[in-house]
This record gives sequence, C-alpha cells and structure tokens, in this order.
Amino acid sequence: MTDIPSTMKAALLLGNGGLEVLDVRNGVQVPTPDAHEVLIRVHACGMNNTDVNTRSGWYSKSVTEGTTSEGGEAGFTHSDDADGGWGGAGLIFPRIQGADVAGTIVAVGAGVDESRIGERIMIDPWIRDADDPSDFTKARYFGSELDGGFAEYTKAPADNVYRVRSELSDVEIASFACSYQTAENMLTRSRLGVGETIVISGASGGVGSALIQLAKRRGAHVIAIAGKSKLDDVAAVGANITIDRNTPDLMAAILDSAPGGHVDVSADVVGGDTFATMMNCLRRTGRYVTAGAIGGPIVEVDLRTLYLHDLELIGATICPPEIFRNLIGYIERNEVRPLVAKTFPLEDIREAQTGFMKKHHVGNFVLVP
Amino acid sequence: MTDIPSTMKAALLLGNGGLEVLDVRNGVQVPTPDAHEVLIRVHACGMNNTDVNTRSGWYSKSVTEGTTSEGGEAGFTHSDDADGGWGGAGLIFPRIQGADVAGTIVAVGAGVDESRIGERIMIDPWIRDADDPSDFTKARYFGSELDGGFAEYTKAPADNVYRVRSELSDVEIASFACSYQTAENMLTRSRLGVGETIVISGASGGVGSALIQLAKRRGAHVIAIAGKSKLDDVAAVGANITIDRNTPDLMAAILDSAPGGHVDVSADVVGGDTFATMMNCLRRTGRYVTAGAIGGPIVEVDLRTLYLHDLELIGATICPPEIFRNLIGYIERNEVRPLVAKTFPLEDIREAQTGFMKKHHVGNFVLVP
Repeated sequence: MTDIPSTMKAALLLGNGGLEVLDVRNGVQVPTPDAHEVLIRVHACGMNNTDVNTRSGWYSKSVTEGTTSEGGEAGFTHSDDADGGWGGAGLIFPRIQGADVAGTIVAVGAGVDESRIGERIMIDPWIRDADDPSDFTKARYFGSELDGGFAEYTKAPADNVYRVRSELSDVEIASFACSYQTAENMLTRSRLGVGETIVISGASGGVGSALIQLAKRRGAHVIAIAGKSKLDDVAAVGANITIDRNTPDLMAAILDSAPGGHVDVSADVVGGDTFATMMNCLRRTGRYVTAGAIGGPIVEVDLRTLYLHDLELIGATICPPEIFRNLIGYIERNEVRPLVAKTFPLEDIREAQTGFMKKHHVGNFVLVP
Repeated sequence: MTDIPSTMKAALLLGNGGLEVLDVRNGVQVPTPDAHEVLIRVHACGMNNTDVNTRSGWYSKSVTEGTTSEGGEAGFTHSDDADGGWGGAGLIFPRIQGADVAGTIVAVGAGVDESRIGERIMIDPWIRDADDPSDFTKARYFGSELDGGFAEYTKAPADNVYRVRSELSDVEIASFACSYQTAENMLTRSRLGVGETIVISGASGGVGSALIQLAKRRGAHVIAIAGKSKLDDVAAVGANITIDRNTPDLMAAILDSAPGGHVDVSADVVGGDTFATMMNCLRRTGRYVTAGAIGGPIVEVDLRTLYLHDLELIGATICPPEIFRNLIGYIERNEVRPLVAKTFPLEDIREAQTGFMKKHHVGNFVLVP
C-alpha cells in the first residue's frame, strides 16, 4: 500500500442546489477500507440522472415537475427531505457522487483475500445490508448515501466489487453500471420474454439505450421512442422500429408498428405526458415498468384500464444482486456494447452536467479523474 | 329430459339504462346445451356490482365517476361502447345476467358424460376459449357476454361447471362465485403470504368480505376499511383491525395498526379518494391490487412513489381456471363461509338492485327463481 497517497482529487457535492454546489478539490482524504471492503483506484466513472436528481433535491415530495429538459433544468428545489421524500434523506455533505466505477483494486480491508489486489473491476452500486442483504429497506446507493467514484480513489464492500474480464477501455467499462443494471432490472421485473414486443420511451438516454440492447438480447421486438434528431442513432443501437416522440397520434404509431398490434411491455423512464400512451398501448395482461420520470412524476391513471385489462404497473429501483452479476457476464461475452457519448476530465464536472442535462446526446457521459 | 319445459321465467336486460331496462318474463325459451355444454336448473343466483355496471354502461370510457353510492346511482350513461370501453362491447340484447349460479345439471350436450346429470354444481363464470383457454383476450363472462343465471334454467360449458359437495344451502352456495373468485385472484396476483399484512377497502361488500376470509385463510394480518355502521359486522367476518373509512388521517390509522408499521398488500375495489391512501401506505416492494373502482376510476399517481419504493400496481379481472377450482375446495372444506345479506325472488330484481346499490348491507344478495 506504499504507492497510495493520503489525499486525492475529488468532486464534492456540498449540498442540494445548482451546479455551484459541485466543487472539485485536491487534498481530499483517500478512504481507508474497513473490514470486508476494498480500496479502488478509479480510472473512469460514468454520470447518471440520479447524480442530477440528488443534487437538485428532486427526490423530495415538494417537487412535482420533471428533472432535466431540453431547455435546462426544471424542478430545482432546495430540500432536506424533511417532507418525507423518497431518497437522499439524511444525506451528509460533503458527498462524493458517481455510481459507475471502472477501476483497479489497490488495497483490501480485513477479511478480504489479498489476491484480489490488482483485479480490474466494476462496482454494483446497490450496497445491501451485510447482515440482511434481502431487506431492500436497508439498501443504500453508491455515490448517494455513501461516497462514490467521482474521485481518484473510492472504497466499497468487497461483495459489491466484481472482476471484469474484457477488452473494453476503462471509459467504456464505466458506462455500464447504473443504466444497464437499471434497465436489466426493469426487464426482469416486467418478465420480458422471447418474441414479445416492448415499447421504450426516452430511448436515446443511458437507460433507454441499455433497454434496447438488453431487450434485443432477450429476443424481443423493440419499438423505441425518442426525439426526432436521435432516431438514426437509436436505430443503430438496435431498435426494430423508431418513432418520433412528437408524433401527433403516438399511440396509433406504436400499435401500427407492433407485430399483431400487441404491446406486451412498456419500459418508461419519462412519465409525464408520455405516461398515458405507454400504459394505454398495452395489450391485456401487459406490463408497464418505470425507473424514472424525467418528464414529470404526477400522472393520471384510469383504474378501469388497470384492472379490466389485467395490467401491471411495476416500479423498479433496488436490484437483487443477480442482476449485476448477470450484467458482468453480458459484458464479458460482448452481448452488450458501450455507448459513450462524451468523456470529460473530472475537473469539468459542471460542464459535463450542463451538457448531460441538455439531452442532446445518445448514450452515456463518463468522467475521468 | 322429459321434465324440462320449453319455456321459462327469466330476468331480461333489454339494453343499457336504469332499472326500467330489467324485465322479468315468462315464456323465455329454455336454452339447449350444445356439444360440451350442460343444461342447469338454477336454484339460486347471486348479484354483483358487475350486473349494475353492465346495465348502466359503466364499462365505457365516457364515464369517469364511480358506480353506485349511498345516495343511489352515480355515473349512469347510455353507451354502446363505441368509445372503446373495457367490456360489454357488442353486447346483444336481450341478455340474461347473473354470474353466481347454484344449481343442478339436468341435461348434457354431445361429448359430456350423462353421469353428470344430477350433480349439484357451481359455475366458473370466466368462459375461456375452448381451443385456447390461456388466451385471456378470448375470455367471456357468464351473465355478460353470454346468458347467465337470473332465470330458471341456464347452460354453460361443462368444463366451467364444478360439482360441489357441501352442507350449505343453495342460496349460500350462490353467494360465492364472482366475489370469492375475484378476491382469491386478487390475493394470488398480489402474492399475499403468511404473516404479511393486507389492507382491504370496501371491506363490507361482496369482494371485500371475501378478501377478509381468504386473506385470513392465507395466514395474513387483515386491516379492514368500511363505513362506520358496518365495522362490527366486518370484525365478525374476521378482520384483525377495522377502521372507519372517514377517519381524518386514514393513512396514519392504517400504519398505526399494522404490525411493525408495514403494509405488504393493499386490496382495493373502491379507488377514488381512497386510492392514494391505499397506494401510499405500502412498504417498499409492496403490492396494490385492484378489481373495481366503485368510488371513481380516475386517480392521480406519483410515479416516484411507484418506482422509488419498488411498488407494483396490479389489475385483476380475468382468472386462470385454478382460482375457481381452489375455491371449490375451500367451500367443501368449510375454509370460507357464506355471508348472505338478503334473499329476493327473481321477480323482485329491481327492488334487489335498488337495495344492493344503497350499500347498507354486509355480504351478498341472492335471487331465487
């Protein structure tokens, strides 16, 4: 451990707020791995909507608008979650964000085999309770309830740190964790099967483009909805059909392009105005699954559509460990491919978030410390 | 078959409308069982919300209010489902309603063993496609898309007609089918398990009181919500806790009475103003299940609650055959008991529906031809 410095460069989140609460500093203490933890040299770390949401305080019930939009950032609020929000409650600042780490194990805590030092790794960002991993109420998110990867070093429980054997670059490896885990969890919870048809909203984003690849991997027929300027890129990711999200009769466009006129699964990270179409296009016994609501969280439901069509509306946030374990296999077997839209040095995190929130890109943004 | 008359008494639904579209007549032709069907002498037939909804045209998208209420009947409309409603589309009038038959097989069609004549039976009201029983889109409801049991005789596919060996009276046997099948399907779809806590809305109704018994049978802790005047009756059905639906902070009352402050499943046939409480009281990974919306179908959902708490909202209408088969076993083993609120002669069907819609009763209404 002689080559590990005592301090490092890290991007600190100083509180809930705008970009000004993000501060990249030197002299931040390098963490020490406790028992059953490992210390990781971060080579690259991807960026996700959750970084923006946590910063802005969107996981607070007083916010009813969407998060980011073409025009900038809607729904910003200062909040300490005293209103009983959904996440980030009791967040302690400063906090190092960043869920998508590609790195190398450089030290291990007590109880971890030293042979793991040198492993090239990815981190499962769902940190489960060591004594009770199946109790989702005790799960915390890496880079949110505990420090993450927007730094030169980070630490994590050894059980969350997976060796990955791949020809992909560090930046490419760092583009997978949050979005692909979220997407695979959505498909698992909604039980997407071979030959079924799935509609994906927000298909150009990190989760959306992961959904396309992971749904194709399962043998499904993919209808992808995105902004007009990104449809070619979305088709290149693998969608069978792409539809402009501003199509006047979006529902008719979906049903016309669905084999047999049937949609089995809707995977939605947009919500807002898109929600009704995503729910109403489903066939009897269809499943709607959500892992985000960037277009606005408050929607109207007709319970008759839900019950008389035997639908399911499924939320998908916390993942059981097998989701990430499976994902490592998909990456190692090249069954999914990285979609890196842009790379930034860690110092430019504000500029990176500004670009990220504009949503002009397809795929993932990655920071390099 | 010599003792079977050619005509019979039956209650005919002449169209969508108010009570005036119900007409009890003699001289209606006794049906002839086709191949794989049986003819049944009806001894008693229970009444359900679906009879009222079909009559009033509530399964039409132009109706956005609840169905029946203390004050009478809200949401009445004439509709031919040309607006793309959820049920009763293409209903042919006159129609004989009535899903909950207790009767005796008196004749069989081709391909049915004559030894079945004389069986005391109940009918599974979900009539599935003979060639493709697993395709829910082809399922029809007995007493809705085809003639039911508000008559002296009725016929049904032999596979839907179950022998029942029980000491219960015909009226008691006729109180189970629709409401208990619906309730058991709700508990099956929401995977209610031993030791879990369930909240039940509309707990004094047919489905509600069935939910209480069937949830207790599964070893669950039952919190039942009903009108204040019915709480004693609801407790007598078996609820662990009863709560007045007009309690000012209903959510706090539920959580205070839930072991550990956790609710695992919400079973809701009310919707409307009750919906938000039924959804928001759920613990992480909780399941909300609905099979009706008597308090109003249009509700608001915060997608963040759905996805950040890993909830599921589940619709439950069409049942796989094992639900009814299991129910027959529960009845024969006295694991559920009938709750007959009132009995009427078939001639008094209008008076019966008037009383039924007032919702002053606990349990089921039964008509006797």
